[in-house]
Amino acid sequence: MSDINKIVLAYSGGLDTSVIAKWLQEEYNAEIVTFTADLGQGEELEPARKKAEAMGIKEIFIDDLREEFARDFVFPMFRANAIYEGEYYLGTSIARPLIAKRLIEIANETGADAIAHGATGKGNDQVRFELGAYALSPNIQVIAPWREWDLNSREKLMAYCEEHNIPVENKQGKKSPYSMDANLLHISYEGDLIEDPWAEPEEDMWLWTKSPEAAPDEPTYIELTYKQGDIVAIDDKAMSPAEVMEHLNKVAGENGIGRTDIVENRYVGMKARGCYETPAGFVMLKAHRAIESITLDRDAAHLKDEMMPRYAELIYNGYWWSPERKMLQAAIDQTQENVNGKVRLKLYKGNIIVVGRTSDESLFDEKIATFEDDAGSYDQKDAAGFIKLNALRLRVAAKKGRKLL
Amino acid sequence: MSDINKIVLAYSGGLDTSVIAKWLQEEYNAEIVTFTADLGQGEELEPARKKAEAMGIKEIFIDDLREEFARDFVFPMFRANAIYEGEYYLGTSIARPLIAKRLIEIANETGADAIAHGATGKGNDQVRFELGAYALSPNIQVIAPWREWDLNSREKLMAYCEEHNIPVENKQGKKSPYSMDANLLHISYEGDLIEDPWAEPEEDMWLWTKSPEAAPDEPTYIELTYKQGDIVAIDDKAMSPAEVMEHLNKVAGENGIGRTDIVENRYVGMKARGCYETPAGFVMLKAHRAIESITLDRDAAHLKDEMMPRYAELIYNGYWWSPERKMLQAAIDQTQENVNGKVRLKLYKGNIIVVGRTSDESLFDEKIATFEDDAGSYDQKDAAGFIKLNALRLRVAAKKGRKLL
Amino acid sequence: MSDINKIVLAYSGGLDTSVIAKWLQEEYNAEIVTFTADLGQGEELEPARKKAEAMGIKEIFIDDLREEFARDFVFPMFRANAIYEGEYYLGTSIARPLIAKRLIEIANETGADAIAHGATGKGNDQVRFELGAYALSPNIQVIAPWREWDLNSREKLMAYCEEHNIPVENKQGKKSPYSMDANLLHISYEGDLIEDPWAEPEEDMWLWTKSPEAAPDEPTYIELTYKQGDIVAIDDKAMSPAEVMEHLNKVAGENGIGRTDIVENRYVGMKARGCYETPAGFVMLKAHRAIESITLDRDAAHLKDEMMPRYAELIYNGYWWSPERKMLQAAIDQTQENVNGKVRLKLYKGNIIVVGRTSDESLFDEKIATFEDDAGSYDQKDAAGFIKLNALRLRVAAKKGRKLL
Amino acid sequence: MSDINKIVLAYSGGLDTSVIAKWLQEEYNAEIVTFTADLGQGEELEPARKKAEAMGIKEIFIDDLREEFARDFVFPMFRANAIYEGEYYLGTSIARPLIAKRLIEIANETGADAIAHGATGKGNDQVRFELGAYALSPNIQVIAPWREWDLNSREKLMAYCEEHNIPVENKQGKKSPYSMDANLLHISYEGDLIEDPWAEPEEDMWLWTKSPEAAPDEPTYIELTYKQGDIVAIDDKAMSPAEVMEHLNKVAGENGIGRTDIVENRYVGMKARGCYETPAGFVMLKAHRAIESITLDRDAAHLKDEMMPRYAELIYNGYWWSPERKMLQAAIDQTQENVNGKVRLKLYKGNIIVVGRTSDESLFDEKIATFEDDAGSYDQKDAAGFIKLNALRLRVAAKKGRKLL
Repeated sequence: MSDINKIVLAYSGGLDTSVIAKWLQEEYNAEIVTFTADLGQGEELEPARKKAEAMGIKEIFIDDLREEFARDFVFPMFRANAIYEGEYYLGTSIARPLIAKRLIEIANETGADAIAHGATGKGNDQVRFELGAYALSPNIQVIAPWREWDLNSREKLMAYCEEHNIPVENKQGKKSPYSMDANLLHISYEGDLIEDPWAEPEEDMWLWTKSPEAAPDEPTYIELTYKQGDIVAIDDKAMSPAEVMEHLNKVAGENGIGRTDIVENRYVGMKARGCYETPAGFVMLKAHRAIESITLDRDAAHLKDEMMPRYAELIYNGYWWSPERKMLQAAIDQTQENVNGKVRLKLYKGNIIVVGRTSDESLFDEKIATFEDDAGSYDQKDAAGFIKLNALRLRVAAKKGRKLL
Repeated sequence: MSDINKIVLAYSGGLDTSVIAKWLQEEYNAEIVTFTADLGQGEELEPARKKAEAMGIKEIFIDDLREEFARDFVFPMFRANAIYEGEYYLGTSIARPLIAKRLIEIANETGADAIAHGATGKGNDQVRFELGAYALSPNIQVIAPWREWDLNSREKLMAYCEEHNIPVENKQGKKSPYSMDANLLHISYEGDLIEDPWAEPEEDMWLWTKSPEAAPDEPTYIELTYKQGDIVAIDDKAMSPAEVMEHLNKVAGENGIGRTDIVENRYVGMKARGCYETPAGFVMLKAHRAIESITLDRDAAHLKDEMMPRYAELIYNGYWWSPERKMLQAAIDQTQENVNGKVRLKLYKGNIIVVGRTSDESLFDEKIATFEDDAGSYDQKDAAGFIKLNALRLRVAAKKGRKLL
Repeated sequence: MSDINKIVLAYSGGLDTSVIAKWLQEEYNAEIVTFTADLGQGEELEPARKKAEAMGIKEIFIDDLREEFARDFVFPMFRANAIYEGEYYLGTSIARPLIAKRLIEIANETGADAIAHGATGKGNDQVRFELGAYALSPNIQVIAPWREWDLNSREKLMAYCEEHNIPVENKQGKKSPYSMDANLLHISYEGDLIEDPWAEPEEDMWLWTKSPEAAPDEPTYIELTYKQGDIVAIDDKAMSPAEVMEHLNKVAGENGIGRTDIVENRYVGMKARGCYETPAGFVMLKAHRAIESITLDRDAAHLKDEMMPRYAELIYNGYWWSPERKMLQAAIDQTQENVNGKVRLKLYKGNIIVVGRTSDESLFDEKIATFEDDAGSYDQKDAAGFIKLNALRLRVAAKKGRKLL
Repeated sequence: MSDINKIVLAYSGGLDTSVIAKWLQEEYNAEIVTFTADLGQGEELEPARKKAEAMGIKEIFIDDLREEFARDFVFPMFRANAIYEGEYYLGTSIARPLIAKRLIEIANETGADAIAHGATGKGNDQVRFELGAYALSPNIQVIAPWREWDLNSREKLMAYCEEHNIPVENKQGKKSPYSMDANLLHISYEGDLIEDPWAEPEEDMWLWTKSPEAAPDEPTYIELTYKQGDIVAIDDKAMSPAEVMEHLNKVAGENGIGRTDIVENRYVGMKARGCYETPAGFVMLKAHRAIESITLDRDAAHLKDEMMPRYAELIYNGYWWSPERKMLQAAIDQTQENVNGKVRLKLYKGNIIVVGRTSDESLFDEKIATFEDDAGSYDQKDAAGFIKLNALRLRVAAKKGRKLL
């Protein structure tokens, strides 16, 4: 381990990563560089700087990555209608590759030979950080203190803090019992009271959304404008990707939208209970499907649907930075050129109701779909031939005595 | 056409199929057998018998198929978590193969050489009826009057009725402007006011569900008991498949659950707007995923997710009676043996909130998932090796200069 | 039919399309434009001009499309390792979209309102021509005489020729009994003696390849140079795509390589026996897999393998000109950037034996693969963790009593 | 390690596993049980017993597993037409789960608490053994000496042998330089001269097959009889699965059939060169596709083709004993009920030429496929409607200005 001279640490400013910073200094006798990102988690980052300085850290990076996160990670993912195991919006998963990328950039910039993170050895995040780091910088060394040290209980951590003068904020009565992660796309909760899959979370766990019960009694209508599969304006007001997400988080959360409560399958092999609030994400998935419904070709749409579970799995498992994710992204992005237009939504007490979709490039043709005179575009008699030929193989088999019942 | 002597007609008792019955008698000079099915659409069927008798029809079949429909068609489909294009619960699609099967059985029983149906030449139902019929009886002849006759406007139909003494019920002010279909799984609406994808449906279109606004202010909690992937009891009361669906339709509809409003891609090639109420279906999909989340192996679950779009497409397109659907069903059913346990749900104003899942065969292991002492089941250090080997190909590529950015 | 004034006919110069030219003139009273393409089928095309002129046709297009065919159709397809039903190299399928495209271009150029082709109503080619034409020119009219006329026997055709002074070449003893199609990629045989799937084709059916028995007793070695997935040189001699194919057809055919004898499933629903000679194709598929084996990432390669059957099916069924084929092509092409290097092959009596592959961008790393000191790139102890975590879900299930036996 | 009292060792009788036996005795102070399987590798197993006895081993299991291997592992795999990365017949992969199963059975029988194997830490076999063992016996302990000890060079091994009186057979000039594995399905070669992917293997490496050059100048014809997808007779002589394989290995190997020379992607992350002889496997894959070509429904066949790469990957990676492999197997087996009939093959100097296939359950219908009068089974005019409806979405898109070129 003596070959490590400088370590870039993904540093939140919280207790755990503060302990890690100190532990790395001691254990590796290495210079520490901290990296703290604003991904829209809604926390002040300047305290992190203060704390890092207090530990004698010289190189402190605090970056506002909100636009990059929304534009280059979240938005491409939503083009795919990605959802993991039918329920999870990948809020944590999609943030990790950006952090990994930035850790590597900073390592390159500062001449560090290692990175470190505060993810435990039982979760997915260690995998996501490290796969990304290795893919972008194959000789980087990775330090995951939770897999190495013996500070494996709250008591030992506290003792370590006391011993090393690491300040422990004693937010009386305020400390959440849950393990949480937040960014523009979501906030997550794990552990403690919700470890039992039969237990309903208490209402005060949820921090970002009103409950459907507490949401306004009047619905909110919004209109989203899409360009090439991405939202570019809300209610005709042009917005950047991060602005879109901030706006939607606010309005959807206010209307009781965005809660997920699941048991999911981790890449490292176990099932885990997780609760999530993803207000903007809920709206974006629903609306994107709606704009695609009128602008996307049927068979391209179905192929996207077949590819999606794999794509979501790749992101969940930490393979954003991989040839196979890029390959799927190329296919997905190829379909979005004409995904332009508007979707009108009604938000009401947890419901997202699509009440209109329109596009200059709509493939919906009222005349063909209905009984109106369609000027010869569709001859009903063609259907007989269509059916006859599609049935041919089935009829031949039936004539040969094959049974389907 | 002179080779057709007897025709089994899928007969609803409504105006269209009454006209068809008469038209077939005249056009084909053939004996007509009517078949009317109770699939849970919630209509009296005896009037259909009366009307058929009035047209001189001798062989009249009126069958209660609700249990068979729920047990052998709807339930197997929900084992797959099937949903078409991310939104449609396949309510009409899944009923057609049962009707096709029964038409063929009756044709065999009565010595008929043809079947007829009232589906138009622009829709999916013609395909579903006919593929099913051909697959089960390859020499059957199929008559689709809407593709043949020239009664292609409301006026011509009315004139035909008048000419042939077919009674037209004049439900003043009550006639819905929509084209509708209903069974235990759903009721659907097409045409008229909702042909424009930008137009929000009027509230009085919806017949089965309360709006979220009008739903009760107090939530309803229910517990579903699963056995091998199927619901066998609600709130500990054992129920048959059809009873399950009737119960869930009632309680979910009451709570504002089950509305879908989409533009979908028909198998015959065009996009079409459709609105649907599927109260039980909404609950069943959500709850099935929840019970699977604790009882199904991860990789089996992911494989199911990858197969699902194809499976749903097959059902939508009319290939229930096909080798490929049976093949997928075999894979799906193979996974359901241990999908046993209970799901607890909170229903509230359009929301279905999973608040608990439990199973004697749960694969969720609290000790492994969390920081508790897991008695050696999981060694965090293993994660390092897991990541290293998964990263190997990415690192080798990066060392060779491959770029992912 | 009176609205058709000018028809572009895909004209081979053979008997069938000559009859069609005459029949179209008579039946549609329309001007005929002939289009004859050199796709490498190895026939003189000037006689086609003569014949067309003799029928009074004014606009005669004879195009050498060999390079476009090889470069824009065959080569992209081989990047996907496409093969239909495990055996068929898609030789006819891949030529049809180019002909469809050119028919439409000529129709646009000459102001024609229809196209016509000589494919029958039982085959795949009608579908391929027409889907392509409709996709590229949605208002085009398509005439498929074989589906319309009553010249449905050899006798009637001959009578028509006599009546209309269409010269019938009487190549005594030379007329093949098979229905054939040829281009740079293959020559195909259908019908007659090989209709019975139990019958072995007679040796003299095969026109392009020597039999393995008759091939030289000495092997031929060749080296193929790949750039971005395409062959750009053979034995270090730079060649255009069409030159590559011509060269490989010659050398592979000489060595007894390229014969396929199968029963395949047509898109129109029936099974059909087909025999094919695809000498260059056999070599290209084998060699492309070999160069990919050292240059392509594992998971990208596996994803390609999973996509391939669908991609091949799309081409077989006539959907080259479709959003979904473009979508898959985008994914496939995305992977080929580094598919560069050389493959060395030994060709001998029907065998294609890969005897070497090398690449500056090879991902093969001898040190990591073997027992050599790998300078820490691979720590065997990592494998234990890798296995443990991959086994975790299986162990948890086994502990819960799940049985796999 | 003191908790291990008895270890079942997969024991070949060769040098490496003899060293392991001794090392385990010393290192773990545990009782050793040896298990040696006859999988058709063509070696005497009694010497293994002698050697084990010489080391003081009391419980020695020597099992003839040839029929079980062929019937329950190889045959089911060939029903899927499984092939890894387009080239590898999975000869080693498919043997490992049987060995894992038997190791666990013996551990249960003898009260052992651990198993051990001689696979290295860089290969796939360790994964296959261990995933199988854990899946079937979740609390078993696994010892992989190659990952643990420091005998990581030939010299150290030899020194260990000398020190512990382990006899080293000095087959002068006979010792192959390759790492090899053999069973009924194949023999494999890795390492040494073929580590360089550009190097052609020397002819004397291949032990099971004649070279095409050296194969007879006269072809051999054979007829395979299939029942439910499995070969049950050759040339009308009924044979057991293992007999089928032995017979085919002989006749195909004699005719120069079965050599594979590839670079493959290991599950543990690196690329590796491997050479294989799989004479029976080559024939079985080709013939199975041929019998399926006339007996299997088109869409079931295509779905099988799409599933195959995943199925092959699962077996390659060691997941035979997994819910997802069982799920795919259920789908595959579901299709084989009617895969009955005969395939006639010509074997000649490396070529397997299908020259006939026939079945009482053939779906091939000569009348429908050809120009013969098909008695109304197929109306060519239906094709127009079939094409028109399949083209509809493409035409609508083109009318809206979408470009495919």
